[in-house]
Amino acid sequence: MATTLVTGIGSLVTNDSALGAGPLGVIEQAAVVIDDDRIAWVGAAAEAPAADTRYDAGGRAVFPGFVDSHSHLVFAGDRTAEFDARMSGQAYRAGGIRTTVAATRAASDERLADNAAALIAEAARQGTTTIEIKSGYGLTVEDEERALRIAARFTPEVTYLGAHIVAPEYAEDPAGYVDLVTGPMLDACAPHARWVDVFCERGAFDGDQARAILRAGIGKGLIPRVHANQLGPGPGVQLAVELGAASADHCTYLTDADVDALASGDTVATLLPGAEFSTRAVYPDARRLFAAGVDVALSTDCNPGSSFTTSMPFCIALAVRDMGMTPDQALHAATAGGARALRRDDVGVLRPGARADLVELDAPSHVHLAYRPGVPLVRTVWRAGVVV
Amino acid sequence: MATTLVTGIGSLVTNDSALGAGPLGVIEQAAVVIDDDRIAWVGAAAEAPAADTRYDAGGRAVFPGFVDSHSHLVFAGDRTAEFDARMSGQAYRAGGIRTTVAATRAASDERLADNAAALIAEAARQGTTTIEIKSGYGLTVEDEERALRIAARFTPEVTYLGAHIVAPEYAEDPAGYVDLVTGPMLDACAPHARWVDVFCERGAFDGDQARAILRAGIGKGLIPRVHANQLGPGPGVQLAVELGAASADHCTYLTDADVDALASGDTVATLLPGAEFSTRAVYPDARRLFAAGVDVALSTDCNPGSSFTTSMPFCIALAVRDMGMTPDQALHAATAGGARALRRDDVGVLRPGARADLVELDAPSHVHLAYRPGVPLVRTVWRAGVVV
Repeated sequence: MATTLVTGIGSLVTNDSALGAGPLGVIEQAAVVIDDDRIAWVGAAAEAPAADTRYDAGGRAVFPGFVDSHSHLVFAGDRTAEFDARMSGQAYRAGGIRTTVAATRAASDERLADNAAALIAEAARQGTTTIEIKSGYGLTVEDEERALRIAARFTPEVTYLGAHIVAPEYAEDPAGYVDLVTGPMLDACAPHARWVDVFCERGAFDGDQARAILRAGIGKGLIPRVHANQLGPGPGVQLAVELGAASADHCTYLTDADVDALASGDTVATLLPGAEFSTRAVYPDARRLFAAGVDVALSTDCNPGSSFTTSMPFCIALAVRDMGMTPDQALHAATAGGARALRRDDVGVLRPGARADLVELDAPSHVHLAYRPGVPLVRTVWRAGVVV
Repeated sequence: MATTLVTGIGSLVTNDSALGAGPLGVIEQAAVVIDDDRIAWVGAAAEAPAADTRYDAGGRAVFPGFVDSHSHLVFAGDRTAEFDARMSGQAYRAGGIRTTVAATRAASDERLADNAAALIAEAARQGTTTIEIKSGYGLTVEDEERALRIAARFTPEVTYLGAHIVAPEYAEDPAGYVDLVTGPMLDACAPHARWVDVFCERGAFDGDQARAILRAGIGKGLIPRVHANQLGPGPGVQLAVELGAASADHCTYLTDADVDALASGDTVATLLPGAEFSTRAVYPDARRLFAAGVDVALSTDCNPGSSFTTSMPFCIALAVRDMGMTPDQALHAATAGGARALRRDDVGVLRPGARADLVELDAPSHVHLAYRPGVPLVRTVWRAGVVV
């Protein structure tokens, strides 16, 4: 394969403090050499080696592709009317997740795959080069396995979320559903997934159920991650740390003990401001997490019910405005933070050997992601060395 | 000129309740005929007349182009560092508007025009087909006149805002600056503007100064609009109503008397959520205005200091989430509301005779502007019948 020199970078975020200034490892007047799907060289433009082709970034900002470590992209149907009613203060008999479950079960494989592909493409145009995808709208053995097979067409970061809610058929027998999720459903799903997740929340699965589900997944070689403390305080975060989960996601309602647990363990706190935005919920305070030394990631939670956005730039702007992140912290959380939440060291960073996932912004600085909210500033995206 | 049939519109917002359902005048399965720069026909697709060419909207939503009735696009320089420091909680000796005044004065005409053109193009790609532009970063006779001449290259909606702040040279003599703004500066500027505006706020111009400035403008044939009640309660809103201003802009801090005045008069309340977003200020409650029967517009306030967004879709999403507008109210405010704030009846509406300004959204409903926040959903924009 040919090499490409991306030069004329006004400000390059590497996320490697050994390569540049500050925690973001920023190099001004920088260049990057891409060799096939990998980064071959990073440094000052004036010192760049030759390459087969050359791309001039014209003084613009370049940073690692976004790592969106939390999405629910295998679904069918639309919940526009539910959203409209909620935002208009009107009564509406919303089926919530069950609405999407019914539509998803009724959809063909191709319909589900086409919908996911369209959303992944939409995300890629906005700079997302790594994405995690969960099941959770099937809730039968066949439908959960199908969702994971479809997700795996697009990403290796596939998460088994049979424990999204108790399936409607088990409404009167939640213990029976936990048996299904930890038994036959897990057996069918584990070969297609890397991760196991559970919605540990009042109305979904309690701490004991969540522990059983995650332990069963671990027993099948899956790595845990947890939907934790979104709608109120609960056991999810501390359970995530207890089980060595890669990430506790949402973290909207945290006690001091939750923050202490996150700070002492190896579990990333993944914040999902799109969910608070689209449900008019209170935002978590990221400053509290950073002050405690917790690793923080930022993701979209893209799903048709509570956060129907694929836009990592939008989530960055919200994280800065409403969660108290600095622009630097928000970019780091959306790139290196997401990579850490997926236990990946080949993405979310621009150093030799890393995957060549780059975003060129039509702006002189990554700060513009928050400074220019809502504006589609992403100009060029490379994923594994290929322009998206 | 040839006619174009835009058909296959899943949901058409006309903003004319005589043409369709509800306050937005929605027609399902609709079509529009464009003749040169005007709308020639609107109705059900099944009844559409023939036209020379045909465009199939594929079931997507179409609505009137956005009318952004409040922007400050004639400027130079960048305030990224100031924004970054503010959002990071760091001390920073920000010059505020003065920083932009210095950069603007130092810039060439072409630099200013190129910057404005780039921002207008960026706005157009996001669906803005009518835009108002203010001066206010010159603050000398020559620099204010220059700003208006440049703005007039792009739009007839040009606003003289010599009274943005007291010019630095007059810091010790604000009365002298008011004399300049109402005298020689007005004489030079009035021929190039349609509107006169003043920043009526503590630290800028008080009620008496603002009244003098607006009356002087009215005396020269300009129509008043007012920056009112942004940073705290003040006389701006009631002054706007008293003088028959087309719009009172910001309206962040309103007393009951302010709301009553707006409800009783003919002045539109123009809300600018980008400013509250980018300064972490409290949002005004749109529900209070709608409940009182006030006409409401929604605009970007695009400027490099306090709201550097050109995105009307972003402002709609914020207005729904944070100002309590329904998705319908927000779209109406961003189209028909803006038109009313500019006293225009040829834009912000899709009816025969109106200008052919249309936005096709890559979604089945305009509700997706808020339901899918941050996602660049605008697919095709026609301005005066021409695809942008």
